[in-house]
Amino acid sequence: MEPVKVFLDDREIPKQWYNILADMPTPMSPPLHPGTGQPIGPDDLAPVFPMNLIEQEVSTERWIDIPEEVLEKYLLWRPTPLCRARNFEKLLDAPVKIYYKNEGVSPPGSHKPNTAVAQAYYNKVFGVKRLSTETGAGQWGSALSMACQMFGLECRVFMVKVSYEQKPYRRMMMMTWGANCIPSPSDKTEAGRKILAEIPDSPGSLGIAISEAIEDAVSDEDARYSLGSVLNHVLLHQTINGLECQKQLEKLGVYPDVVIGCTGGGSNFAGLCLPFVRDKIHGKDISIVAAEPTSCPTMTRGPFAYDFGDTAMTTPLLPMHTLGHDFVPAPIHAGGLRYHGMAPIISHLVKEQIVEARAYNQLETFDAGVKWARTEGYIPAPETNHAIAAVVQEAQRAKEEGKEKTILFNWSGHGLVDLAAYDAYLSGKLTKYELPDEEIQGSLNSIAGLPKP
Amino acid sequence: MEPVKVFLDDREIPKQWYNILADMPTPMSPPLHPGTGQPIGPDDLAPVFPMNLIEQEVSTERWIDIPEEVLEKYLLWRPTPLCRARNFEKLLDAPVKIYYKNEGVSPPGSHKPNTAVAQAYYNKVFGVKRLSTETGAGQWGSALSMACQMFGLECRVFMVKVSYEQKPYRRMMMMTWGANCIPSPSDKTEAGRKILAEIPDSPGSLGIAISEAIEDAVSDEDARYSLGSVLNHVLLHQTINGLECQKQLEKLGVYPDVVIGCTGGGSNFAGLCLPFVRDKIHGKDISIVAAEPTSCPTMTRGPFAYDFGDTAMTTPLLPMHTLGHDFVPAPIHAGGLRYHGMAPIISHLVKEQIVEARAYNQLETFDAGVKWARTEGYIPAPETNHAIAAVVQEAQRAKEEGKEKTILFNWSGHGLVDLAAYDAYLSGKLTKYELPDEEIQGSLNSIAGLPKP
Repeated sequence: MEPVKVFLDDREIPKQWYNILADMPTPMSPPLHPGTGQPIGPDDLAPVFPMNLIEQEVSTERWIDIPEEVLEKYLLWRPTPLCRARNFEKLLDAPVKIYYKNEGVSPPGSHKPNTAVAQAYYNKVFGVKRLSTETGAGQWGSALSMACQMFGLECRVFMVKVSYEQKPYRRMMMMTWGANCIPSPSDKTEAGRKILAEIPDSPGSLGIAISEAIEDAVSDEDARYSLGSVLNHVLLHQTINGLECQKQLEKLGVYPDVVIGCTGGGSNFAGLCLPFVRDKIHGKDISIVAAEPTSCPTMTRGPFAYDFGDTAMTTPLLPMHTLGHDFVPAPIHAGGLRYHGMAPIISHLVKEQIVEARAYNQLETFDAGVKWARTEGYIPAPETNHAIAAVVQEAQRAKEEGKEKTILFNWSGHGLVDLAAYDAYLSGKLTKYELPDEEIQGSLNSIAGLPKP
Repeated sequence: MEPVKVFLDDREIPKQWYNILADMPTPMSPPLHPGTGQPIGPDDLAPVFPMNLIEQEVSTERWIDIPEEVLEKYLLWRPTPLCRARNFEKLLDAPVKIYYKNEGVSPPGSHKPNTAVAQAYYNKVFGVKRLSTETGAGQWGSALSMACQMFGLECRVFMVKVSYEQKPYRRMMMMTWGANCIPSPSDKTEAGRKILAEIPDSPGSLGIAISEAIEDAVSDEDARYSLGSVLNHVLLHQTINGLECQKQLEKLGVYPDVVIGCTGGGSNFAGLCLPFVRDKIHGKDISIVAAEPTSCPTMTRGPFAYDFGDTAMTTPLLPMHTLGHDFVPAPIHAGGLRYHGMAPIISHLVKEQIVEARAYNQLETFDAGVKWARTEGYIPAPETNHAIAAVVQEAQRAKEEGKEKTILFNWSGHGLVDLAAYDAYLSGKLTKYELPDEEIQGSLNSIAGLPKP
């Protein structure tokens, strides 16, 4: 019988990342300087990121070597297992085989350290002493805290105040890894002080936290800013996962009909899916599905447009699917999916109809997640539940069509520090969070005057 | 270079458990009926456990087949990786190689499901419909909840009320796996009602919770009781881990000089160490170290004596190292190590000087745990930190003696739902918890009148 899990030996870990920019069938629009409306150059980004990462951001080399020092850290938890979900298959009773890549086995419990470790390394090599970042639910902040500790960098994390108070476990994780975790808005930055002066008890927002982290980084020449999703180099680092997965599938002699990932900023989706996107561009017959929440339907209901990456309008303009930088998503439990925009690479692939976006409501995602936990054991992160809901939908379709299908998805992280969400779901306190058209229309006004891609 | 991790394929998973009773160099004293003082027989236990598990409890067969149905569930997370802790080695700067078996990769995050899955299976086969158990910190309750869900059994967990309130994440985990988690003392049992009548706001204790769970089980003929440590059959199921580990070490061509586990009731220690105890009995030159807390120094300061397994004196008398069933351990964060007794098998091995017991205080264990997290990434459970403290000690000795050593230990679980303990440690709120002689003397009075082994 086919094994339940396929491991790779340490020696089989991929030694290069895959850069989709080398294979894009149509050119992507460039990021623009919001003042001049002109494409930004590397120098514009130099105060924010180290030059070695900026070079990766704009590189069109297909394969980029993973430094030895990064591989050494990856090996603490990578290669991650590729697993067959036989018990879940049995429950669904459909003609499908379901495989998942378990990224929950990393120390912080998600895919985030794939780029955190790489970013910490490149900053260290560039001579940076300290990294500054923001975090909402805390997955990214905790991953970067660990990575900075491993490379001897200081780490400062601006954490949205309401999460800082309501989700203490992620904050404690960051402290355990030696980071300085600060509730945002804070009095450490101009941006924070301004908000506090206006609204002393502000609960904070991801937009404010980004502004604080960037200001904190650019005002100290030994510091740089670090972002956990959206940008090209972040997605690049994540491809280690999809490349591993292709090796594992090869051992089984299996190739999927459908590949699925959940999407917030796009990084875990990209990690698993971009190597399969490459195959599709080269002619493979495969569906690639991005699962987002109905409460933040960036790709399914937002236009492809130029928009700022943050609420405070401090970033370059990015060509992407967006709900408008003023969009405030409902407080759903999948905090990692509450972002108004989407990685330009993923947005471009959706526009080109290479990737298909679908939206799932909160109740159907938790229904899928609880079914998963009760058959496969592992409790998924609320974000991951969106991918599982898409798997359930694919299985139902296969059953209706009487067609055999092989489904692969990214199990992006576990939900052990998100259990309050399950508690709320099981006690009937969660709602669907469908989004009225007027609300989207309202927030889209914020991008009306911007250039068009 | 030697790999960081050694996996086993699904097909290489051990198909039998190892029963140390077949190799004990001296006979163990039998459990006694507290009323008659005579050795108890299988029939005495029939209302509490199913007969197939009672048979395992008293079996002296060396190898016991693992049922296919149990193996199938084990394969959801087993074989677990054997890892080399190179980064921690570098930090310690001693002539040691450190290997650890990562039991934290299971769905509930510890070694506990190794026996939970087996017990749920045997109860199911015996026709039992419902299992009842108690839990303190929640590791055991969550593992049994998952196992019962997988085999279609109802599960009722009496959780010490103060933990139920202060550690909501474990309770939520149990609910997600479909168990009924009840704060103890409860009004569901005579034992609980009696306590509530006397002390309406009682915070509960493990002793009370055990009494409630046993009463609940024996008063329903479709139900049985389940215990997560101490008993022979529980330790037997855990040996899957040590047997896997021996196969993995063989692949590396490595054999350890020292094997280490932390000890509360003895189950995770037994799981890794008993197969190595077998080697030692057959002549291997190896140290086997059991690491316990100085706040609950069962083996290092408690006598080997007959004692009850619970505070309420409802269990048979077990021959074991004990601090007396009246002993109330300090509220240290390693909740899984706060038990007044020790598994009879482990106690016997300590008495025979095959296993060496050592005690570590809370501060040195968290110091070791934080160092671990900052080098190896994974945040250990507070219980596991005791084993890591012993590793640090072994490394220091090796350095002093200028002697190369290979150390192996059981990384029994992760600390992601125990982060409050790290928060307390890092903010200087933890104490050592050394135990005064008078206190031990006081609690030992409770066993003064009992038979002697």
